[in-house]
Amino acid sequence: MVSDAKADPTNNAEAIGLVNHGITCSNHAFITSAKVVQEPTPYLCSVQFEIQAKDPHSGARAGLLHTAHGVVPTPIFMPVGTQGTVKAVGPDLLASDTRAHIVLGNTYHLYLRPGIDVLEAAGGLHGFTTWNRPMLTDSGGFQVYSLEDRRKIREEGVKFQSHIDGSTHLFSPESVMDVQRSIGADIAMAFDECTSYPIEKKYAREAMERTHRWLDRCLIRWNETEPKYGYAQALFPIVQGSTFSDLRKESAEYIASKGAWGNAIGGLSVGEPHEEMYAMTAEVCALLPNDRPRYLMGVGTPANILESIALGVDMFDCVMPTRNGRNGQIFTRQGTVNLRNAKWARDFSPLDPDGDSAVDQRYTKAYLYHLIKADEALGRQIASQHNLRFYLALVEEARTRIADGSFRAWKDALVPKLTQRL
Amino acid sequence: MVSDAKADPTNNAEAIGLVNHGITCSNHAFITSAKVVQEPTPYLCSVQFEIQAKDPHSGARAGLLHTAHGVVPTPIFMPVGTQGTVKAVGPDLLASDTRAHIVLGNTYHLYLRPGIDVLEAAGGLHGFTTWNRPMLTDSGGFQVYSLEDRRKIREEGVKFQSHIDGSTHLFSPESVMDVQRSIGADIAMAFDECTSYPIEKKYAREAMERTHRWLDRCLIRWNETEPKYGYAQALFPIVQGSTFSDLRKESAEYIASKGAWGNAIGGLSVGEPHEEMYAMTAEVCALLPNDRPRYLMGVGTPANILESIALGVDMFDCVMPTRNGRNGQIFTRQGTVNLRNAKWARDFSPLDPDGDSAVDQRYTKAYLYHLIKADEALGRQIASQHNLRFYLALVEEARTRIADGSFRAWKDALVPKLTQRL
Repeated sequence: MVSDAKADPTNNAEAIGLVNHGITCSNHAFITSAKVVQEPTPYLCSVQFEIQAKDPHSGARAGLLHTAHGVVPTPIFMPVGTQGTVKAVGPDLLASDTRAHIVLGNTYHLYLRPGIDVLEAAGGLHGFTTWNRPMLTDSGGFQVYSLEDRRKIREEGVKFQSHIDGSTHLFSPESVMDVQRSIGADIAMAFDECTSYPIEKKYAREAMERTHRWLDRCLIRWNETEPKYGYAQALFPIVQGSTFSDLRKESAEYIASKGAWGNAIGGLSVGEPHEEMYAMTAEVCALLPNDRPRYLMGVGTPANILESIALGVDMFDCVMPTRNGRNGQIFTRQGTVNLRNAKWARDFSPLDPDGDSAVDQRYTKAYLYHLIKADEALGRQIASQHNLRFYLALVEEARTRIADGSFRAWKDALVPKLTQRL
Repeated sequence: MVSDAKADPTNNAEAIGLVNHGITCSNHAFITSAKVVQEPTPYLCSVQFEIQAKDPHSGARAGLLHTAHGVVPTPIFMPVGTQGTVKAVGPDLLASDTRAHIVLGNTYHLYLRPGIDVLEAAGGLHGFTTWNRPMLTDSGGFQVYSLEDRRKIREEGVKFQSHIDGSTHLFSPESVMDVQRSIGADIAMAFDECTSYPIEKKYAREAMERTHRWLDRCLIRWNETEPKYGYAQALFPIVQGSTFSDLRKESAEYIASKGAWGNAIGGLSVGEPHEEMYAMTAEVCALLPNDRPRYLMGVGTPANILESIALGVDMFDCVMPTRNGRNGQIFTRQGTVNLRNAKWARDFSPLDPDGDSAVDQRYTKAYLYHLIKADEALGRQIASQHNLRFYLALVEEARTRIADGSFRAWKDALVPKLTQRL
């Protein structure tokens, strides 16, 4: 029955039956020696995944993710709003032009600034920012990990110094659940340890096992606490294991056994070759439940996203469209355009003849070249706006192609173009 | 007849009759020994000023300025688009949210970057930026003057070094007219010398007289050249004279004698007390023709603008709404709000309860405080968007109040509030 629960974690009645052998921890969770299984509480039930189509020629699927703030079509790209805003693109444009369905917030940054008291007083991050569509928050694990010399990882959690004022804080699985309750995103992430690349296998195993122990503590705390703003939040666990196939397999099985409403793959896109990233993603996707959304964290280039959709990934986030946009790089279906290159100074063709963002036909490459060279905010805004819409249009078309069976051929033809430099 | 022409320069038939005693320089201009009078060519005719109402209790007037790209209601504030963009606010929002009717471009910056060849290839600054409403360009005089150690003023013109790459350039009255033909703004400005404050009277006179001589050269070149894009451009001369009443009077009379379609007051708002600025503005307005628009360059605070409207000024430009916005200061009818002050961190009231920009009711002061503190581009965008709309709404209401006779009382009640710090 344990293996059944792993193989079919959607069957929550079975899963709950199983863990009734363990200790009842709260009315939301059941624990066995090393397992915490989420009960389908009214809060959790509202995040449901519905698969609408599967590509016959790859692992790609098209679905609908139902959340408290609306339905997200998948595959989906989530723009990153680190500090309570997607950089240089406001919530009005994100909805009307990018046509984003869900955005990501960063727990580490929001916890430090504006702080939990302000977010709670504002009715959560939705109220604070006025973004009224679905949201997902990361757990802060990746950020505190990135602090390097400013953090210490212990079993209890991670002690770290703020990048803003040097003040000392502790993130534990429990505290990070509490923070994400206060932020109020539709989807919260478990507190994990993300390893760098390359890393010794011994440490990769330690970090993975700690991530699993932390996950159990996250689930206990999550199930002991209630949403603060009257709508459901789901918690997604995260698979780790670096680029070691056996670790990834072990981690994916452990994560799958929790029966969560969605599952994430962390610790990739941290410097490893793309082929390793795809290999790990494929192995993990094969073990994560088919009927739950799979989220590949921090990925990636347009080509990375299409290849990972083909492996069965449904959700993505990345700072690339905004960060690269600010640096003058725009993505097109013909390849990337570096607007810092003088070759565009007199190119009066539209920014992206194939694009459907409001900026694509309105502005010329020459104008954007000028704005970027002159360090004008409008240049960064336009490039970010274009790139975000480019990413969303890409996953929209992927979805359509999955539905009509043409995804694989379309993806194989497009990827070589996407990776060209114009 | 000469003094008639000065007093009533709208009577071009008379003016032309007058200067027929002089030398015909081109079919667009007539010169007497020290005078150049613009003939109402087809090109120039399209910039016409129509006064609709005069305030019975002050010098304020409401009018319409007809230009090749549309009609500008006056009094009007012109957002500053130094380098081919208003900072952080694109032409779409400038039209739809700010409801700007005319924007200003800076000849010095545009000449250096993107450069005249690019602007000409784009069909002028309108085509380059996609702003299709009226535009005005300054002459670069103020900018090259501001370079201080990097420029030398001679009778020929100003030799200066680019702030971008240190390259050496010469701006002369002639070259600046050519550049403004290439930029293609509806209104171009004469090349002047703007003095700093305080300045010795001897130098103020020298600069003023040079400005007058340069104006004559500007007019000759302007009338020798044709618009490049098929629509009319007007040239406005500029009154100088620092804060010396007799110099201002002399300069205003000289400028008025040219019969231009509009006239500007330069060299104010450069550090002198507001009372001196108002005194000089009043003296100059009394001498500049009543039936032509008066443009007070580089002014100013909301209170400065209302007071100057009362003195008979019709047009304004200033970087204050965008520059101060980027620094976290927003203007409201109750006073200024410094969003860097921690007192706003938990203020969830609308950004401006009285404002009608899309951002005013949507976002809270607490959210803007956070964005500004976190150095997020969106904070600068929202504050700039709010402030620009605030300035436009202010001149819109001034116009309505002038029409219904309540301007003076409204202005007197509002100015003390505007200058408060909240």
